[in-house]
Amino acid sequence: MGIRELAKVLKLSVSTVSRALNDSDEVSAETRERVRAAALEHGYAPSKSAASLRRGRLDIVGLMLPVRREEETYTLGIFMKLADGLQSVLSRHGMDLVMYSSESWDDEFARLRRIVDRRHVDGVILAGTRKHDERLDYVASRHFPFVALGRSESGGEHAWVDLDFEAAVTEGVERLVAQGHRRIALAIPGGDAMQAHIYLRAWKKAMKKHGLPVPEGFVQRNELSERGGYLATEALLKLDVPPDALMFQSDCMAIGAYRKLHETGRAPGRDLAISGGVLAGEVSEYLAPRLSGFTLDAYGLGQRLAQALLAQFPDIGDAYRAAREPVLWPLTLRERDDDTVTSEAVQR
Amino acid sequence: MGIRELAKVLKLSVSTVSRALNDSDEVSAETRERVRAAALEHGYAPSKSAASLRRGRLDIVGLMLPVRREEETYTLGIFMKLADGLQSVLSRHGMDLVMYSSESWDDEFARLRRIVDRRHVDGVILAGTRKHDERLDYVASRHFPFVALGRSESGGEHAWVDLDFEAAVTEGVERLVAQGHRRIALAIPGGDAMQAHIYLRAWKKAMKKHGLPVPEGFVQRNELSERGGYLATEALLKLDVPPDALMFQSDCMAIGAYRKLHETGRAPGRDLAISGGVLAGEVSEYLAPRLSGFTLDAYGLGQRLAQALLAQFPDIGDAYRAAREPVLWPLTLRERDDDTVTSEAVQR
Repeated sequence: MGIRELAKVLKLSVSTVSRALNDSDEVSAETRERVRAAALEHGYAPSKSAASLRRGRLDIVGLMLPVRREEETYTLGIFMKLADGLQSVLSRHGMDLVMYSSESWDDEFARLRRIVDRRHVDGVILAGTRKHDERLDYVASRHFPFVALGRSESGGEHAWVDLDFEAAVTEGVERLVAQGHRRIALAIPGGDAMQAHIYLRAWKKAMKKHGLPVPEGFVQRNELSERGGYLATEALLKLDVPPDALMFQSDCMAIGAYRKLHETGRAPGRDLAISGGVLAGEVSEYLAPRLSGFTLDAYGLGQRLAQALLAQFPDIGDAYRAAREPVLWPLTLRERDDDTVTSEAVQR
Repeated sequence: MGIRELAKVLKLSVSTVSRALNDSDEVSAETRERVRAAALEHGYAPSKSAASLRRGRLDIVGLMLPVRREEETYTLGIFMKLADGLQSVLSRHGMDLVMYSSESWDDEFARLRRIVDRRHVDGVILAGTRKHDERLDYVASRHFPFVALGRSESGGEHAWVDLDFEAAVTEGVERLVAQGHRRIALAIPGGDAMQAHIYLRAWKKAMKKHGLPVPEGFVQRNELSERGGYLATEALLKLDVPPDALMFQSDCMAIGAYRKLHETGRAPGRDLAISGGVLAGEVSEYLAPRLSGFTLDAYGLGQRLAQALLAQFPDIGDAYRAAREPVLWPLTLRERDDDTVTSEAVQR
């Protein structure tokens, strides 16, 4: 139903109905209510604002949250801060952020197709990239504005922002080496997650630089969850010569290591040095000993993602030209006061 | 730009453009790409599907995530499972769930007004209700379909679903009493959160039923975060006669209590029994000792919320008639194997 038919039903002029729908003070509150009720009843969908129509935009941007494992709630905290940062930039242009969450990769891909084909949003941020990522190929083939959070070999040349895992893992290895550790192991997520590929490559490079061996079984792949970290630690403790330090890419896996160590009468830090990787939640603060790792400015990252997307919109893109270049977002080492991870402690 | 103008620009028939935009196989892949690129370039917004237009619906439902404190990432896990449940029901009707997150209450209210006034969605789920909640009054006054997750005194008669805090807190007090505890304290979120009001009222009732006193300072209000729980525990430990058991409404506050106890050389369970309230995350599994509390079927809760919303849509509402009644969603006690909270232990 159009506005004319709605006006007819209500026996009001089109301009009165329009004013009422736009919440104008020129129309009485009573009439506004009556118009709104009728609009809903008759399924009248108000058109977008005139400005928005002129630009051919909806003024809505989508963020597709990464598909989660059941236990993987930690990264959500980062994503919510990131969403706040995104929204803070979008708000300057009267745009709203909407988020989508999906139960599985296939589910996410189906949703993405629907969002793009029905044009639910003007552009989209895609997280949790894979090395081969059909989502990126899809949006690229549709010439649909998007920014990838994470690198990928798919999608041709496109806008992306990623965490600087290379710098973090290099610093992490250096720190453990400086503390006297030589038998350093790594536990990363399985699957085709691009970040796991990048992390592993950089870790191997850093290990080589320090002349450290990587014995059989020292690289554990498991699910990105507490359970994954628990199982990876279990496997490492069973080795004939277990590691004296264990690096993670994510704090949720490190939490699983803490539990496995506690269960076997070992103490994190004293019996096995733990390096927590990206600290997504504040849980690391509440573990004993507190977990060291890397933090990031998620709000700023969200702002940067917004800029990289807005840079692709014809009318406002120029203002964000500087954000067109891909960027590696810094990870900052956070060492804890009561971190007991020292070589002496471990070698006791 | 309309489809006619787009067809003109492309020098194609309207039906070819329409088929191309609908991804029809009757049009070559090359033409489809060309049409899509031109549609984006010229700002042509494809109209919704014919079926969707007939119904006057967008086939999009909104979930407004509760405003979070910086540290409060735990409940997000519940909300993501809830979103999965919501989506599972919406999918049956070809509808998509979008989520909105807001940095502050005012921010959320402004966003809600925009979403409702511009009709970005067909209906909305509002979480984190307050006793007096202007959001509910607003959507109710607009005759906009909504379901409240949480009770409130605002919004007139409306659809709502809430957790059964009364049953949980009653069971929680009984459990501690059965373990021999008499000096039971409570830490709940501050502010006007409806759930805190409900929890406190039910707790006082349960305490009275068991003839237990509530000394000055035994009810602590603080922020819904680890820090809030930390500070509440600190205040309780300073009392001349501190409690021997401490109940929380949320696991994130309980985690703060663990830290305060560890810092002061006390052990949770041995020196102070901790009851974790709603266990939003899996962190409780990884604390030592593991934290007891209450779990819920968040996926099912999401399904129920979807049904309560769809019940308000004229064309499909009848199928969901049974979901029109408000419901108290069950919380299930999860006691841990290695829970050391016993009266003997505490009284040692």
